[in-house]
Amino acid sequence: MSESPVELVIVGSIGLDTIETPREKRVDILGGSVSYACASASFFSKSGMVGVVGTDFAESHRDLYSSFGIDLAGLQTAEGDTFKWHGVYEANMNNRETLSTDLNVFEHFEPNLPAEYLDCPFLFLANIAPDLQLHVLSQMTDLKFVAADTMDLWINIAHEKLLEVISKVDLLTINDSEARMLTEEHNLVAAAKWILDRGPTYVIIKKGEHGAMLVSSEGVFIMPAFPVDDVEDPTGAGDTFAGGLMGALAKSGEVSDATIRRAMVLGSVAASYGVEKFSLERLNGLVAADIDARADVLLAMMSVTS
Amino acid sequence: MSESPVELVIVGSIGLDTIETPREKRVDILGGSVSYACASASFFSKSGMVGVVGTDFAESHRDLYSSFGIDLAGLQTAEGDTFKWHGVYEANMNNRETLSTDLNVFEHFEPNLPAEYLDCPFLFLANIAPDLQLHVLSQMTDLKFVAADTMDLWINIAHEKLLEVISKVDLLTINDSEARMLTEEHNLVAAAKWILDRGPTYVIIKKGEHGAMLVSSEGVFIMPAFPVDDVEDPTGAGDTFAGGLMGALAKSGEVSDATIRRAMVLGSVAASYGVEKFSLERLNGLVAADIDARADVLLAMMSVTS
Repeated sequence: MSESPVELVIVGSIGLDTIETPREKRVDILGGSVSYACASASFFSKSGMVGVVGTDFAESHRDLYSSFGIDLAGLQTAEGDTFKWHGVYEANMNNRETLSTDLNVFEHFEPNLPAEYLDCPFLFLANIAPDLQLHVLSQMTDLKFVAADTMDLWINIAHEKLLEVISKVDLLTINDSEARMLTEEHNLVAAAKWILDRGPTYVIIKKGEHGAMLVSSEGVFIMPAFPVDDVEDPTGAGDTFAGGLMGALAKSGEVSDATIRRAMVLGSVAASYGVEKFSLERLNGLVAADIDARADVLLAMMSVTS
Repeated sequence: MSESPVELVIVGSIGLDTIETPREKRVDILGGSVSYACASASFFSKSGMVGVVGTDFAESHRDLYSSFGIDLAGLQTAEGDTFKWHGVYEANMNNRETLSTDLNVFEHFEPNLPAEYLDCPFLFLANIAPDLQLHVLSQMTDLKFVAADTMDLWINIAHEKLLEVISKVDLLTINDSEARMLTEEHNLVAAAKWILDRGPTYVIIKKGEHGAMLVSSEGVFIMPAFPVDDVEDPTGAGDTFAGGLMGALAKSGEVSDATIRRAMVLGSVAASYGVEKFSLERLNGLVAADIDARADVLLAMMSVTS
């Protein structure tokens, strides 16, 4: 039995994002893969955040993390500025362009884990450089299930390291265009099988507003996304999805094709709330019952028997 | 009780298509909305085809229709050439460009129905000019359920007539980009509700490889498409889907949100077969058991409980 004070460890980026959508521009708002993932996981499990911020990081952001119940023992503060990202969305909100990235304190980040996290059974390597994902993975002693997410940048500049990550995880989550880029397979089932051949037991291909697909040796699960009335900011949707999924899995304690399917629905619902506002604004204040309520609606939308 | 020799009447276009995909070019192959729709419906119901061909139309095409069990009493032959369409697909097979359209015998087509079709309870107005759809609709005497499909061309050049069609049908099927064009709503649920406000009880928004969505006062159903390994030609997929759906509904005889959901799965499976080859080549030779077998696979892919 783990002695860890957390049920799930998540490592990833913490950033101050400047985001331009067709309707609005927001400057230096709280973002980063681990922010979204831990907030989403918190509806289901106690998660520990592993990441780095600069001395400019507002106390109010830490307070927000704590209000989600996130454990911050693995949150380092380094001399310098917090990582910054500036992106702009096209009119359809599906495509975005990165205008600038300032690594800042991220450049010398070494994700050394608090001793009390090392025997935690669930680990989510949210989007971050593959060598940092490997560094975290190497420290864990009693893993039962580890998932990783990635992005196009690492496919391009850290291909071998990314393949090493993939070879060592139980689940890879990746979006559709990135899966096609990584595998050079246009068909998503073929792309998923290419990835399965390289190590993971499960692959989830994220399709944005079109939902997500799970592929394993047990079959294929294709889930729609909850149709959100008004998407204010899609940033972090994939992290929110995967964080919620991992939080739900850690809560259930059991990992199988069936528990992952159910956890995907919950993660997807968390993401559908998340995109209704910028940053963590919509997730903040939600409770597990809100997730369950929308999950029931989504399940009815997926049911052939209505 | 209807005396009609057919369970479902379908009117639409018959064309000789020249289609260019990234891998292949095929010249003057059998196509048109009613060809695909009737062939697909035939797995479930006896359908009657209403359309027009020219004197150039090969006897072998008629034989193919007959081999599907399609009733041809409403198939007119007019002096002149059959309607022709020439299109080219982009590399991703999702977008296509029309290079030429030759109306030929279609220009003076008057879809007058055989007397024995008039009291048929099920009618599908496949994609064709809205005034022709209205002309067919006006002749039917005992309709229980009528569906219509349309395309961007009619939204642009026959907007008022299309709205009149919409006001008179029970179900409208329309693809996602066309639904957004027609309603000026980006969100597909909002687009569907705009259409429901104008008459139909049901709206199905077709999303190509991403499946389809049914919206009615009873709720929303979101169905994925079967992931086809290798799409050879997506032409007619929407017609195959809707034709199969209507054939399955006519067979069940009962129309409700639940029977439409089930019929959508069957229509979608028929379409997933259809795109594996050009024209009706893949549908030809399939039997209802093939549809059922793949439907079982798709249903398992949609099930949260795996």
